[in-house]
Amino acid sequence: MIKVGIIGATGYAGAELVRILAGHPKVELSVLTSRQYAGRKFSEIYPAMDTIIKHKLESYSPALINGRADVVFMGLPHKLPMAMVPELLDTGVKIIDLSADFRFQDVSLYEAHYQAHSAPELLAESVYGLPEIYFNRIKKARLVGNPGCYPTTVLLPLIPLLKKGFLDISTIIADAKSGVSGAGRSATLTTHFCEVSESFKPYKVAAHRHNPEMNEVLSTEAGKKITITFVPHLVPMSRGMQTTIYAGLCKSGITRADVASCLNQFYADSPFIRLIENRTPDTQNVRGTNFCDIGFQIDQTNNRLILMSAIDNLVKGAAGQAVQNMNIMCGFDQTTGLANVPYPI
Amino acid sequence: MIKVGIIGATGYAGAELVRILAGHPKVELSVLTSRQYAGRKFSEIYPAMDTIIKHKLESYSPALINGRADVVFMGLPHKLPMAMVPELLDTGVKIIDLSADFRFQDVSLYEAHYQAHSAPELLAESVYGLPEIYFNRIKKARLVGNPGCYPTTVLLPLIPLLKKGFLDISTIIADAKSGVSGAGRSATLTTHFCEVSESFKPYKVAAHRHNPEMNEVLSTEAGKKITITFVPHLVPMSRGMQTTIYAGLCKSGITRADVASCLNQFYADSPFIRLIENRTPDTQNVRGTNFCDIGFQIDQTNNRLILMSAIDNLVKGAAGQAVQNMNIMCGFDQTTGLANVPYPI
Amino acid sequence: MIKVGIIGATGYAGAELVRILAGHPKVELSVLTSRQYAGRKFSEIYPAMDTIIKHKLESYSPALINGRADVVFMGLPHKLPMAMVPELLDTGVKIIDLSADFRFQDVSLYEAHYQAHSAPELLAESVYGLPEIYFNRIKKARLVGNPGCYPTTVLLPLIPLLKKGFLDISTIIADAKSGVSGAGRSATLTTHFCEVSESFKPYKVAAHRHNPEMNEVLSTEAGKKITITFVPHLVPMSRGMQTTIYAGLCKSGITRADVASCLNQFYADSPFIRLIENRTPDTQNVRGTNFCDIGFQIDQTNNRLILMSAIDNLVKGAAGQAVQNMNIMCGFDQTTGLANVPYPI
Amino acid sequence: MIKVGIIGATGYAGAELVRILAGHPKVELSVLTSRQYAGRKFSEIYPAMDTIIKHKLESYSPALINGRADVVFMGLPHKLPMAMVPELLDTGVKIIDLSADFRFQDVSLYEAHYQAHSAPELLAESVYGLPEIYFNRIKKARLVGNPGCYPTTVLLPLIPLLKKGFLDISTIIADAKSGVSGAGRSATLTTHFCEVSESFKPYKVAAHRHNPEMNEVLSTEAGKKITITFVPHLVPMSRGMQTTIYAGLCKSGITRADVASCLNQFYADSPFIRLIENRTPDTQNVRGTNFCDIGFQIDQTNNRLILMSAIDNLVKGAAGQAVQNMNIMCGFDQTTGLANVPYPI
Repeated sequence: MIKVGIIGATGYAGAELVRILAGHPKVELSVLTSRQYAGRKFSEIYPAMDTIIKHKLESYSPALINGRADVVFMGLPHKLPMAMVPELLDTGVKIIDLSADFRFQDVSLYEAHYQAHSAPELLAESVYGLPEIYFNRIKKARLVGNPGCYPTTVLLPLIPLLKKGFLDISTIIADAKSGVSGAGRSATLTTHFCEVSESFKPYKVAAHRHNPEMNEVLSTEAGKKITITFVPHLVPMSRGMQTTIYAGLCKSGITRADVASCLNQFYADSPFIRLIENRTPDTQNVRGTNFCDIGFQIDQTNNRLILMSAIDNLVKGAAGQAVQNMNIMCGFDQTTGLANVPYPI
Repeated sequence: MIKVGIIGATGYAGAELVRILAGHPKVELSVLTSRQYAGRKFSEIYPAMDTIIKHKLESYSPALINGRADVVFMGLPHKLPMAMVPELLDTGVKIIDLSADFRFQDVSLYEAHYQAHSAPELLAESVYGLPEIYFNRIKKARLVGNPGCYPTTVLLPLIPLLKKGFLDISTIIADAKSGVSGAGRSATLTTHFCEVSESFKPYKVAAHRHNPEMNEVLSTEAGKKITITFVPHLVPMSRGMQTTIYAGLCKSGITRADVASCLNQFYADSPFIRLIENRTPDTQNVRGTNFCDIGFQIDQTNNRLILMSAIDNLVKGAAGQAVQNMNIMCGFDQTTGLANVPYPI
Repeated sequence: MIKVGIIGATGYAGAELVRILAGHPKVELSVLTSRQYAGRKFSEIYPAMDTIIKHKLESYSPALINGRADVVFMGLPHKLPMAMVPELLDTGVKIIDLSADFRFQDVSLYEAHYQAHSAPELLAESVYGLPEIYFNRIKKARLVGNPGCYPTTVLLPLIPLLKKGFLDISTIIADAKSGVSGAGRSATLTTHFCEVSESFKPYKVAAHRHNPEMNEVLSTEAGKKITITFVPHLVPMSRGMQTTIYAGLCKSGITRADVASCLNQFYADSPFIRLIENRTPDTQNVRGTNFCDIGFQIDQTNNRLILMSAIDNLVKGAAGQAVQNMNIMCGFDQTTGLANVPYPI
Repeated sequence: MIKVGIIGATGYAGAELVRILAGHPKVELSVLTSRQYAGRKFSEIYPAMDTIIKHKLESYSPALINGRADVVFMGLPHKLPMAMVPELLDTGVKIIDLSADFRFQDVSLYEAHYQAHSAPELLAESVYGLPEIYFNRIKKARLVGNPGCYPTTVLLPLIPLLKKGFLDISTIIADAKSGVSGAGRSATLTTHFCEVSESFKPYKVAAHRHNPEMNEVLSTEAGKKITITFVPHLVPMSRGMQTTIYAGLCKSGITRADVASCLNQFYADSPFIRLIENRTPDTQNVRGTNFCDIGFQIDQTNNRLILMSAIDNLVKGAAGQAVQNMNIMCGFDQTTGLANVPYPI
């Protein structure tokens, strides 16, 4: 049993971490913090957890963690974690940060899209926490930058085919769609039920901060600079993210079987990737799970590949992937605590 | 480990049974049947379960079960179970039937609201599967009639106060609201997304078949004939059921503390009853769980008690309660396999 | 053509007034004010209206209205209108106030549930704007207190039967359900999509401020003090309100035909009341209209009447009823501008 | 006043036609037919229309229309209209067919994606009813093939830029999203509330029958063969369609101003096109209207244009566009009966 703390436990990703970790057989959930609700019981904020989660929310200080946690998850907004991580690391804990602060290798890229970075020296050490790609590096990491939800849906389908050399890298377009929980728990007009219901719309068109994150990882994996077109959309549902990706095939004659075989081989040992052929990836079928469902179609006329992925943005797109990273960092089977049977509806 | 079969595994209640039982530590899910989909994989019908549930759906016959199940759940429409149960019981299995066929003690009541009963001799033996009330009888039963979802929300809040003699039995009214999954998985205009969305409405006003079921149990518990007014409503959501019950207090001077104390004592040993004082029962807070949340308020001016309950209609209102019954019948702790941590949203 | 102003045009009720009045054949929409958005175009706040509504939002002052409006609607939160109405009335305009400030006859009742009243002398003059009941008084009014949405759904079904002497007044219970727009446009956790979706719950149980409003009108109409039990609930939908009312019949032998005849006669000349016999009142069927659908059922066993009503909370429950009042005050046919054909879904 | 009939009035598009035409100042709605509900009142099928639409549904025969209609709308499934149209045209009526039967110029294209065409001789005469493009031909037509909903969202943004020569025609991709009403009113598992809610998914990937329809019109307008990649998705909402289109700019240096100017000039006289710059096209803002909102963004890095459009699939995507066509064919202003003020939410 390891002791685990969550800094920032009351946002949607934090609360999802609580859900998963409370049922994790190798974890004792030891510390939950909240800036807004310190002093109250966690279950007052999430009454669904009443009688199940008995923790009180505490106010964070580095001293608070001291000796009470082997692993710390950070569920805070960008900018806060980088101020806290250096000191925390020194206490010997392993850290999985769900913000963007430790996702980038190139500090200038981070600074162009977020703000000045206060701990750039850690970027060389921090590992991008996409386990299907960086398993071995995660295994040895003490600091993991957990991927953004959109990048997760874009990188997992693309990387195998990119590495195989199947794709014309100048043609890649990702059209992504997210449920409302991706916007967080803050009360805003954008998340008001009456404004969301019956509303489907693009936003931050070719201007979302997850775009440079994808670009950096894709470029690293392909070994050349890749800049894709990325447009996110908001869907009137709570959870779920589905992305449809378009990419020209870089030579003729690539068949369905070639693509299927490439994906199947690449993900042969990845328990959370489901390659599906008889249906399309649907958010309802991954809801509440750590799966990334991947499907594809070839548009023969245009020799263009259409890749489709679906995840639960709060699980494989955030808390579930973070726990998967923890499992790997701690030497557990990566599915530990993540194998819940999904709801039929 | 016991072997468990589900007859009728592809309706919503059946699929929810699959979800719960597949994660149950003392159960091996051995047989799943379907009239409509026999021969196909269960996960083709519920793709969320892909890679997790590997069972093929079979076509039911009594011989099919022979030796392959210690306990059988029946997730079939009313009328079918009563034709199958007698023969099945003879093979020595324990049966939990989710239909109405074995819920009534008085066969004439069943026949007035359903149809002629083909196995009336079993009604004396069958036990009404509301564990918070009939734990000891369920423990010894080989045939349990699993309660209707509406009756579960009505009986649990009322029975303690009725038995305490607090309520004027001629004044009881239950105004109940159900999510759409209560209507089943059949494709009908009533369950069409465009007809349900933005639609809230009463239906089967004072004419629902769950009304006589409630009446019979309430009358038994109170020791006198009770006939309540019951009006169900349809809510534009998938899961969840909330009922608000009105009853005159039969003498003055009954306080909040008296009601709270009555409920708290009655349910002191009931792990799935949550008595809540600082909020109201909300379907979102019980979603995916076997809890029944109960709250109340006294309308002082009218000396009237307002009881409120909330359940997940597919869990405590169907599959979860059925598994709770199985646990009791098999000598397991009643929470086994039912203690999943709920989703925060 | 009359000139009409809306003070507080950007809340949901205000914007619905804009929708209706912009299509009203006898109205020129002359002034729209907003505290929050003054200086911006109305259609920036409600982009659906782009190219249709060209008005700029102005900042309210009494001088602003001077000469620019014959009728003023007030779409402001309680407390603000009573400070503004006396001065405005002096300029000769007719006023329809959508807040609670001028709904009560008994100032102490208002003050017990809201706050001290700064213009109590106007309560004797102001008319409760329920046209089906107070048509003649509204006709002569210069100040109308537009009813609350919940009271509209409770009063319209009850008053005819109360006046007929059919109901045991000590037994009346109203169980009401509202869409989320009833909570207004402010961004709060309560209206967050992820908190509302799949959530159905009671709130302000026997403690809602619309309860004394109903009580006062019912008592006036019955000629004796009536205090009903009232419980509102929140439904995961944008618009719509449905109320189910329970009342003991005060003698035996009252038939379906008696109730139908009472309602039919009472509402023979009320174009917005639809008495329905073959279905139940459903929010979807009144969405976007000024109708109040009314149905009923008798629970014979308990000699109890079940009345059901459905309205669109923003139309018959707010803006539509306000325009109906304006029509009557100005001598127009009461349906003018309110006869839009509803959407099929 | 012209007399108008609707053949197939009880599907969603047919009922939306009833809504619009019942409020149309130059139309008398004379005949409504239904195969399924003949003999019943229209308002029994759509109770929202109760007291407003008094028509009885009739059973179609050519004789039925004789003299009772100047214009006929056909709201039937593909294949039925082509069998009926020749005879009907002979009676002298003008016809607007909402199916695909008269949308294609090239009969072989129709036959490849639908079935054998029984009235191919009429294709040369029939006009594709996209008024912003074919106004003058529609004006003189007696038979109009009303466009599919998806093609409407794809063609309107693309055609001006295609004709201007801005786009690399080999790179066009349309990623489209539709509300559930697009699937029609038939009860199917696909439209079941519980299967749709929280589900977002692609379907008929690069295999939808609206794709050849788009291709034919785009090719005609561009004067060369164009085959785009088209992927539709299903959104958990009732109404609305939003499409995001990606196309390489065919030379460098094309600016935002160039694109805006091209669109603005092209649609200067098109009252239903709203070009928007400060927000993105959102289905909620066109709900219930005949607008097509169009926005765009340039992805500078990739010199790629991102076009976005939003319509109400039942209005501009079906019934509204059909009425716009009727207005043009009959010499009315094209906005007649279509200028309703939209709902704020």
